[in-house]
Amino acid sequence: MAIDVHCHIVPADFPDMPCNCDPGIWPHMDHRPKDEAMVMIGKREFRLVDNRCWDPQRRMKDMDEQGLDMQVLSPMPELLSYWMDKDSGLVMSRHVNGAMAKMIEAAPKRFAGLGMVPLQDPELAAKELSRFKGEWGLSGIEIGSNILGKSPGDPHFAVFFAEAERLGLSVFVHALHPPAKDRLVGPPRLEPFVLFPMDVGLAAASAITGGLRAKYPKLRLGFSHGGGMLASLIHRLQNGWVKNKPLAEAFGSPMEAARTFYYDNVVFDRRLVRHLVDVFGSTQVFVGSDYPFAAGQDDSPAMFDGIGLSEAEKADVLRNNALRFLGLG
Amino acid sequence: MAIDVHCHIVPADFPDMPCNCDPGIWPHMDHRPKDEAMVMIGKREFRLVDNRCWDPQRRMKDMDEQGLDMQVLSPMPELLSYWMDKDSGLVMSRHVNGAMAKMIEAAPKRFAGLGMVPLQDPELAAKELSRFKGEWGLSGIEIGSNILGKSPGDPHFAVFFAEAERLGLSVFVHALHPPAKDRLVGPPRLEPFVLFPMDVGLAAASAITGGLRAKYPKLRLGFSHGGGMLASLIHRLQNGWVKNKPLAEAFGSPMEAARTFYYDNVVFDRRLVRHLVDVFGSTQVFVGSDYPFAAGQDDSPAMFDGIGLSEAEKADVLRNNALRFLGLG
Repeated sequence: MAIDVHCHIVPADFPDMPCNCDPGIWPHMDHRPKDEAMVMIGKREFRLVDNRCWDPQRRMKDMDEQGLDMQVLSPMPELLSYWMDKDSGLVMSRHVNGAMAKMIEAAPKRFAGLGMVPLQDPELAAKELSRFKGEWGLSGIEIGSNILGKSPGDPHFAVFFAEAERLGLSVFVHALHPPAKDRLVGPPRLEPFVLFPMDVGLAAASAITGGLRAKYPKLRLGFSHGGGMLASLIHRLQNGWVKNKPLAEAFGSPMEAARTFYYDNVVFDRRLVRHLVDVFGSTQVFVGSDYPFAAGQDDSPAMFDGIGLSEAEKADVLRNNALRFLGLG
Repeated sequence: MAIDVHCHIVPADFPDMPCNCDPGIWPHMDHRPKDEAMVMIGKREFRLVDNRCWDPQRRMKDMDEQGLDMQVLSPMPELLSYWMDKDSGLVMSRHVNGAMAKMIEAAPKRFAGLGMVPLQDPELAAKELSRFKGEWGLSGIEIGSNILGKSPGDPHFAVFFAEAERLGLSVFVHALHPPAKDRLVGPPRLEPFVLFPMDVGLAAASAITGGLRAKYPKLRLGFSHGGGMLASLIHRLQNGWVKNKPLAEAFGSPMEAARTFYYDNVVFDRRLVRHLVDVFGSTQVFVGSDYPFAAGQDDSPAMFDGIGLSEAEKADVLRNNALRFLGLG
C-alpha cells in the first residue's frame, strides 16, 4: 500500500463573494449532470471537474483500485488566490481548508491534508497557520512555485516559513502561473507541460540559494513534479558554488540542501524516477499523481517498480518518506 | 582522442565601432600583461580573458593535454550582438567569423568552427550563410537560446533555418541572456548556474513544439549544457502530447524529435551524462567543455567513463556524433 502526496481537491461549492473582491476572479461551481461541475472563475470556464474532487467515498473507491491507503489532499492550485486582496484570500483559504477538513474527518486514516494560506500577506498567512492542526487536522500547506512572481526562497516570506517550522507544518511547493509564456512556440496550452517543470525548479533553486535549509533547519519542504528542472541544474549549481567564493559564502552546499528536500514522482518516466532517487536520495522521493486531473500520472506507485530499488527503499518511497514529510512518522 | 564541440573564442582585437552603433554596447579589448585582456563592452568590464581565447598554438597545447584531437570553436556568446542594429551586428559577425577562420587555417585538422550571424534580422542572417563554408571554412552557426526574447522555434526564424538546412550548416544553440532574473534569490551571479539550463531547455522545447524537425528534416540541431532542463520535462511534454489531440495535431512526437537533436555533456555529473544518453540516445550526445571559461567543465571526455558505455558507444560520444553533427562524417 502507498501514500499519494500529490492529489487535489475542489470544494463542491464556494461561499458568496466577499464585497471587496474583484468579481472577475472569484470562483463558483456550475454543477452539471453526472456529478460534474464547471469551475467558473468569474464568468470564465476554468476547468470541468467531477465529484472525485470533493467526494471522499468516490475517492476511496479509486484509492482501493490504485493500491493507495492514503491520499494527501491539497487545493487545486488555481484556488490559491494570491491574486485576490488579502481578506478575500483569507475567506477562500478558510473555506477550502474547511472543505478539506470535512473530507479528512470522513476517513481520517485514508486522508491527510495540505491546506492553503493567503501568502500575498506573509504576516497574515503565518498567523493563520496556528489553526491548521487543531481546527482542520491539516499536516501542512500547499504553496505556489511563485507568489505573485516572487520565488518562495525570497526573504519576503521569512515569517511564514519560520512559523511553519515552529508548528511542524510541512510545505509542499506546487507549480503555479509560471513566467516566460512569451517563450512558448506552437499551439495554446503548452504551459503545464513546458513551464511547470521550469517554475518548480526555479522555486527549488530559490530555496537553496536563499538559504532556507540553514534558516529553518527543521522545516520539511517538498516539491511537485519531481522538483521540475532542479535535477537538470543542481550539479551545475553545485559546480558554480564550489568554484565561486561569494556563492559559497552566501548559502550552503546546493547538493546537501537538495538532498534534504522531498520530491514527488509525477515525472512520467521510470528512468527519470530512478535518476531522481539517485540524485536526491531514496529517502526523499515519494508517490504523487496529480489525481484527479487529466495532466496526472496513472499508476504512480508502479513508477517505482523495475528500477532496482531494494525492499527497504521501496517501503521508503511508497510510504515512509511521505509519513516523514508529513510529520506523521 | 575526442572532439570538444563546446568551446569558445574571443578575437584578440575588435574593429572600430561602426558609426551607427550604440557606443555602450560595442566591445573592445583592453590588453594587459601576461597575455591577458579585459573584454570591455562599451566602458563596462565584461570579462577578463587570456590568450587561450585567440591563440591557436596555446589552445593546441591544452588540447594535447586534454586528449582532444579537435576543438569546435564558437564565439563567446556575449559577442552574438543581437542587441545591436543589424548593420553593426553584421560587422561584428564578419569580424568574429574571420578571426575563427584564421584559427582554423592555422591547423585545419585540429579546429572546426561554428560562426555567428546577425539573427536580429533573419533575412540578413540567412543571406550571410552562403559565405560560411567557402570564405571562412565554418561548419555551422552558434545561435542564442533566445534572440531578443524570441525562442529559436519561432516561425520568425524560418528563413534562417531553411537556409542552414539547404547549405548543410549545423546549428548549435547556446544559453544567452535568459529571462526570469527576478526569480533568483540570493547573491549576484546566479544567472549562469540556474537560468542557463532553463533557457536552453526553453529553446529546445520551442524547437519541438514549433515543429522544426518536420519543417527542416535534414537540419542538424545541437544544444549546449546537455539541453538544460529538457531532460527534466521531455517526458511530461510527451505525456501531454499523447493525451491532448490539439498538441498531437500541431507537432510531432516530442521524444522522437528530441532524439534527433544533439547535446553536449557540460552537465558536471556522470550520472546525469548517463541519463542524457539514456533519454536522447548514445548517437546524440558529444563532448563539450565551455573552454576556456571559468564556468566550464574540466576533463569532459572522462565524463563518459564508468557509465556503462560499450566501446562502440564510447567512440560515438567521443568523436563520431560530433563529426555527424558537424557534417564532417
